[in-house]
Amino acid sequence: MTPDDIAGFFAKRSDLNLDDYIELDFDFECAGDPREAAAHLCSEQSTAQWRRVGFDEDFRPRFAAKVLELSAEPRPSGFSTAVECAVRGEVHACRVTIAHPHGNFGPKIPNLLSAVCGEGVFFSPGIPLIRLQDIRFPDAYLAAFEGPRFGIAGLRERLRAFDRPIFFGVIKPNIGLPAAPFAELGYQSWLGGLDIAKDDEMLADVDWCPLAERAAALGEACARAARETGEPKIYLANITDEVDRLAELHDVAVDAGAGALLINAMPVGLSAVRMLRKRARVPLIAHFPFIAAFSRLANYGIHSRVMTRLQRLAGFDVVIMPGFGPRMMTPEHEVMDCVRACLEPMGPIKPCLPVPGGSDSAATLEGVYRKVGSTDFGFVPGRGVFGHPMGPAAGAASIRQAWDAIASGIAVADHARTHPELAAALAAFGGR
Amino acid sequence: MTPDDIAGFFAKRSDLNLDDYIELDFDFECAGDPREAAAHLCSEQSTAQWRRVGFDEDFRPRFAAKVLELSAEPRPSGFSTAVECAVRGEVHACRVTIAHPHGNFGPKIPNLLSAVCGEGVFFSPGIPLIRLQDIRFPDAYLAAFEGPRFGIAGLRERLRAFDRPIFFGVIKPNIGLPAAPFAELGYQSWLGGLDIAKDDEMLADVDWCPLAERAAALGEACARAARETGEPKIYLANITDEVDRLAELHDVAVDAGAGALLINAMPVGLSAVRMLRKRARVPLIAHFPFIAAFSRLANYGIHSRVMTRLQRLAGFDVVIMPGFGPRMMTPEHEVMDCVRACLEPMGPIKPCLPVPGGSDSAATLEGVYRKVGSTDFGFVPGRGVFGHPMGPAAGAASIRQAWDAIASGIAVADHARTHPELAAALAAFGGR
Repeated sequence: MTPDDIAGFFAKRSDLNLDDYIELDFDFECAGDPREAAAHLCSEQSTAQWRRVGFDEDFRPRFAAKVLELSAEPRPSGFSTAVECAVRGEVHACRVTIAHPHGNFGPKIPNLLSAVCGEGVFFSPGIPLIRLQDIRFPDAYLAAFEGPRFGIAGLRERLRAFDRPIFFGVIKPNIGLPAAPFAELGYQSWLGGLDIAKDDEMLADVDWCPLAERAAALGEACARAARETGEPKIYLANITDEVDRLAELHDVAVDAGAGALLINAMPVGLSAVRMLRKRARVPLIAHFPFIAAFSRLANYGIHSRVMTRLQRLAGFDVVIMPGFGPRMMTPEHEVMDCVRACLEPMGPIKPCLPVPGGSDSAATLEGVYRKVGSTDFGFVPGRGVFGHPMGPAAGAASIRQAWDAIASGIAVADHARTHPELAAALAAFGGR
Repeated sequence: MTPDDIAGFFAKRSDLNLDDYIELDFDFECAGDPREAAAHLCSEQSTAQWRRVGFDEDFRPRFAAKVLELSAEPRPSGFSTAVECAVRGEVHACRVTIAHPHGNFGPKIPNLLSAVCGEGVFFSPGIPLIRLQDIRFPDAYLAAFEGPRFGIAGLRERLRAFDRPIFFGVIKPNIGLPAAPFAELGYQSWLGGLDIAKDDEMLADVDWCPLAERAAALGEACARAARETGEPKIYLANITDEVDRLAELHDVAVDAGAGALLINAMPVGLSAVRMLRKRARVPLIAHFPFIAAFSRLANYGIHSRVMTRLQRLAGFDVVIMPGFGPRMMTPEHEVMDCVRACLEPMGPIKPCLPVPGGSDSAATLEGVYRKVGSTDFGFVPGRGVFGHPMGPAAGAASIRQAWDAIASGIAVADHARTHPELAAALAAFGGR
């Protein structure tokens, strides 16, 4: 690129109508001039050839992505991560904020993903390492999306559960059981105090435990538990399946008594979730398969909070995400970034409930609560309820007992002295 | 895990009915005992808790993923790539082949992705770094998929183009032009010799160039070019959009004269592609946004050939992929792995056409042909045709002239002496 070519991809915020632009934060490492690399990054993700041969025209003012901010630090030791085909040259670590004109593609998730996570971003000259760190949308763009139908407030209303976390549990053994004994486990956990008993993300509509049978058994057990406890209860059915079956499975599960639906967001596709959202009669809950494949490393890929924002945009009422602690291999700051992405203002899009999960039990509840800093979260043990040595009712009770202690300002360990389910949970899971 | 727990996740091929299993090759780096790490990897992706509390049962024989092969090398220097939350301990680099029982989820793309690229794979204890290197399906599983409707043979029939590569071109400027001048560029390129003129993957159904208008203009231009040249021509329309619009846009584009459809595979979702495949009247062509986000690094993520296989399985007739040369930052061995994943036998699933692309022109055709080693590939210049100094007709002609030389065993540079379009292409693009 010539210096003039490069300058055509830089702008000041004050020169732009910001309603027309999505803002993207990238960290990247480049070989060669950082300004030219940043200009290429804009060009490649928007109008890579901005005039026809033989015509005096320039599509950049309207169609080009533009650099708003750029900083660069030399890396004398070269690239931070080995890349087999990296270009050679003086290496810089750069941060850039880019304004990308959303009119290039419109309020459509697949086209948005193609623009901000596509060829233009990951195949930009001189930039072998790049990570999309964050994304911000103007309200004018967000207004075209539906977002969560229920959100946190709607879910709390359904459960009549206020001023406390929402207590989920993953029924275990996660796969292998037929519907009747699987429903019995759910029933026990609701009696013990769970709000929501859920299918594992790997359990879907299978011949050895068909969704129709399972939803009927769990729906009946859920209604029975609600009657007996006097509290609303939800069976969360996993309808992850081929896109052309989602509507059918929604109806099968909801008609049988599922009060919420689990969808593996990336495997099904966010656009299919948006489609389902338009007809969903119950809250939609996201699970996180596939996301770690591009979000774990600090210097490459896509930050998981970007995916959290997009799941909220697509219409999920609840987002299950890798939680705190070494088991889930996710830094605390990243979990918190994802929690905030669920809760913070997003124009007309409702907040969704963050559920940071992974090997939780009564022993981890207080830590999660202190880190999140509010009651607006879901807590989702698996073995912490269903592997409890006294069984799932006791496992669920141990969670509620832990919360009672926390809410009353009593040390959880003290509370355990008079609550054998809690004591057994701390003994079984507390060392983890 | 106890030694007995670990042993329950190992098996020999001769002990299994291999029709019931998908085979997965992973490379991973673990801290601690490699055998235990491999057992966890199996457990987490299948039956993580294999019995109920208080029951004498074991779901592993039927439902567990099982280690078939494992090798491990110490890495005294620790993990190859920094991971903020990596566990501590003695590090090994391991290769493992796992048999995963597909009956756990069935012949469904979202559930398959959840199993082989999900939480179980990327959050397995002791394994912060892992890459899914390859996947193999038994014919019994493949038989439930439709695969490409046309495949390479069907596309060649439509174009009456045999014994040579298929010549694509990305119309440029890729975004910004209204339908009429955009169609004129396509028309020129067909006259010059392209088989297929295509929309850029970033150009979809937008208000400044609606698909209906564009498909009508290009469809007319394509028919006219076919009449004038006496050769079949195809306009490849990009219908990447929300999932619930794919069927409508298929009809709009095809009815107006699009002879093939482009879909950004990952952004739209492979399951949505499979849905579209069931009604597609024309070949479906995959573009590759998002894939590099999880496939570039050698030690983490998912090898791109896995995604190539899945795109073929989902029903794409053509797979555009990052091609040869430094521009696309993809090692030659990886490009070749993806080319082979399109062409090699896959049970009842037809071969699809590989299109290794990226900054191609008449100057790169011979290199691509020599590397692929057959004529079963597509060639997809952008600026190499539409940025040709003599215009798109000359740009397309330069590609065909280069092929004529190669097919006749004449040096391309020699042929250029009597073919000014080729000479201009080599002068403009040959230095790249």
